[in-house]
Amino acid sequence: MDQNSNTLHPHRRYNPLTGQWLLLSPHRTQRPWQGRTEDATISQPPGYDPTCYLCPGNTRMGGKKNEEYASTFVFDNDFKALTQCTQPFQEDEDGLFRSESTDGTCRVICFSRNHNLTLAQMEEKDLLAVIDIWKAQMIELSKKYRWVQIFENKGEIMGCSNPHPHGQIWASDYIPEEPAKEDHYQKVYLQQHGKNLLVEYLAREKDKRERIVAENDQWLCVVPYWATWPFEVLLAPLHPTRRLQDLDDAQRQGLAAIMKELLVKYDNLFSTSFPYSMGWHGAPANNGNNDHWQLHAHYYPPLLRSADIKKFMVGYEMLGCPQRDILPETAAEMLRNQSTTHYSMRRR
Amino acid sequence: MDQNSNTLHPHRRYNPLTGQWLLLSPHRTQRPWQGRTEDATISQPPGYDPTCYLCPGNTRMGGKKNEEYASTFVFDNDFKALTQCTQPFQEDEDGLFRSESTDGTCRVICFSRNHNLTLAQMEEKDLLAVIDIWKAQMIELSKKYRWVQIFENKGEIMGCSNPHPHGQIWASDYIPEEPAKEDHYQKVYLQQHGKNLLVEYLAREKDKRERIVAENDQWLCVVPYWATWPFEVLLAPLHPTRRLQDLDDAQRQGLAAIMKELLVKYDNLFSTSFPYSMGWHGAPANNGNNDHWQLHAHYYPPLLRSADIKKFMVGYEMLGCPQRDILPETAAEMLRNQSTTHYSMRRR
Ligand SMILES: O=P(O)(O)O[C@H]1O[C@H](CO)[C@@H](O)[C@H](O)[C@H]1O
Ligand SMILES: O=P(O)(O)O[C@H]1O[C@H](CO)[C@@H](O)[C@H](O)[C@H]1O
Repeated sequence: MDQNSNTLHPHRRYNPLTGQWLLLSPHRTQRPWQGRTEDATISQPPGYDPTCYLCPGNTRMGGKKNEEYASTFVFDNDFKALTQCTQPFQEDEDGLFRSESTDGTCRVICFSRNHNLTLAQMEEKDLLAVIDIWKAQMIELSKKYRWVQIFENKGEIMGCSNPHPHGQIWASDYIPEEPAKEDHYQKVYLQQHGKNLLVEYLAREKDKRERIVAENDQWLCVVPYWATWPFEVLLAPLHPTRRLQDLDDAQRQGLAAIMKELLVKYDNLFSTSFPYSMGWHGAPANNGNNDHWQLHAHYYPPLLRSADIKKFMVGYEMLGCPQRDILPETAAEMLRNQSTTHYSMRRR
Repeated sequence: MDQNSNTLHPHRRYNPLTGQWLLLSPHRTQRPWQGRTEDATISQPPGYDPTCYLCPGNTRMGGKKNEEYASTFVFDNDFKALTQCTQPFQEDEDGLFRSESTDGTCRVICFSRNHNLTLAQMEEKDLLAVIDIWKAQMIELSKKYRWVQIFENKGEIMGCSNPHPHGQIWASDYIPEEPAKEDHYQKVYLQQHGKNLLVEYLAREKDKRERIVAENDQWLCVVPYWATWPFEVLLAPLHPTRRLQDLDDAQRQGLAAIMKELLVKYDNLFSTSFPYSMGWHGAPANNGNNDHWQLHAHYYPPLLRSADIKKFMVGYEMLGCPQRDILPETAAEMLRNQSTTHYSMRRR
């Protein structure tokens, strides 16, 4: 770790992917916490739950019946946030009341038929099945939509309403804010530096070895220099790769291996089923030349100090800018040092 | 309300203050909720708590003793996220590892000596004392810092760790992201339209009467057309006003009255002490010509359907763009129709 004593003082860091600045206050980690604590007890659900709308063969809210699926299963969200094209809107009035119609769809992906597994507990071959369904969905939906957002909300604290392992896809005819910023900043970076921003960044991180959480021949997982959430990570292929659809066989295998390693380390950190929201960003469809893009996943976990104390992104963060206490370098070291054996499997 | 049937379909709306788009899915309000619920029971704390580090005369964590204050009280935060100037940082490397030193300070403002009041329960004359301390702090801190962020995190769900009514001030030598965006978009708007963005917007809202929550001669409180949080409001003076420091006497009085009205309506909506983060945005210090600026407060409350069901800003919101279910027009109507008598005062 770059033992610059300055890093213990408050400072700001710049996120080159989004152009946003972040406030770091590492000296604040010793602050006592008297506020709200989360319920960290985990009830172990059964392997099959007859009332779960994601378990194989069960009937969902809308009345449709799930397939008797064996590994993964995709279906249309019964309460879609995005639906088929609507009429164009009229309001504008000098840019003060601007709106736009949208066209899109929402799907749910079950990661396993087993109601009580998490990705962290699944085997690499089962993670490969998840990667393959992500790829297949990207291929199918990218034909119709400009942006296909694959994501997973894990844990009640992240608004997940069912423990059955699952993720979501929201596809739209517009490119949402976050990837639009990344598209812009990656493009400008390539123009100004003649290099792909993330490919270059990952190479430097591999060299510096200060923020690495896990690595293999194909992938690198770091707590980025500009991480906002305490244990946020960036997971990306080392070699130029635009999209999930472009992953070759070695990259698929490498991804299953590094996902397993990351998720086990996450769970081990606070000996809990580690909550997070994660998702994939890659080059949009019909976007012209995409040389500036590098595929990557963001993991945004809310926990700060323990299984029951989270980071609140509230007043200053909502009205000013994001703020973090723990240094990214410290967070990376804590994660890196975790065992690769899941805590639930450890012999006493 | 503009009964355009399109508004019941998913659509996007544009926030002219920040340049950001938002996804609206009003048809999703009927979605059943099986996920996490918040603990909505409120334990009534005593008027004075000997263990509270904000009550008058008590000793704080750092060992300092609070004044025996009668109404409001300001002190330096014992765990400042921003402190005095540090050495400049060196790293950069082609813009991939950028950081900056910061200079700043953090303060805490107690709103009342009474441990168990909230602003919603205080009288207008007590709210005036809070407004005056905000003003005085802005005047003092703006001499030294470019940006002075006044905010309040209310409720455990918003990371507030002490029920004693209080807010915070974080002052810095940089302008944080959120006000920086507003500075930019307000400036461009004035250049392009020859009008002050918010003054114009407020006048149109006063005319349309679709999103008004409360109003008086001096102030308007609306659920903005582009609101992100379910019951988010924008509170601003109707007449051109750059900063809190510039409020005249009529505006001070009007602000106390409209704050009281808004906060009582908030509490009445779900018969609970309504949680939120709020804060003030006005023209920065040393910013040249500020004709494009209009003072305003944002209120960001997390509740969605009831005292125990909140909106989760998670997967799609973190990786794509903010999404809301309930229409701003509906939210405004619900708030507008609330009684101006606090639910705790109602006769049975
Ligand atoms: O300073 P406090 O009240 O302890 O802390 C609270 O407000 C801060 C500013 O919004 C946040 O950064 C913290 O996450 C939150 O717990
Ligand atoms: O669609 P779900 O899982 O019911 O809903 C969850 O994820 C959505 C997408 O991130 C969020 O908008 C919701 O607030 C959250 O509860």
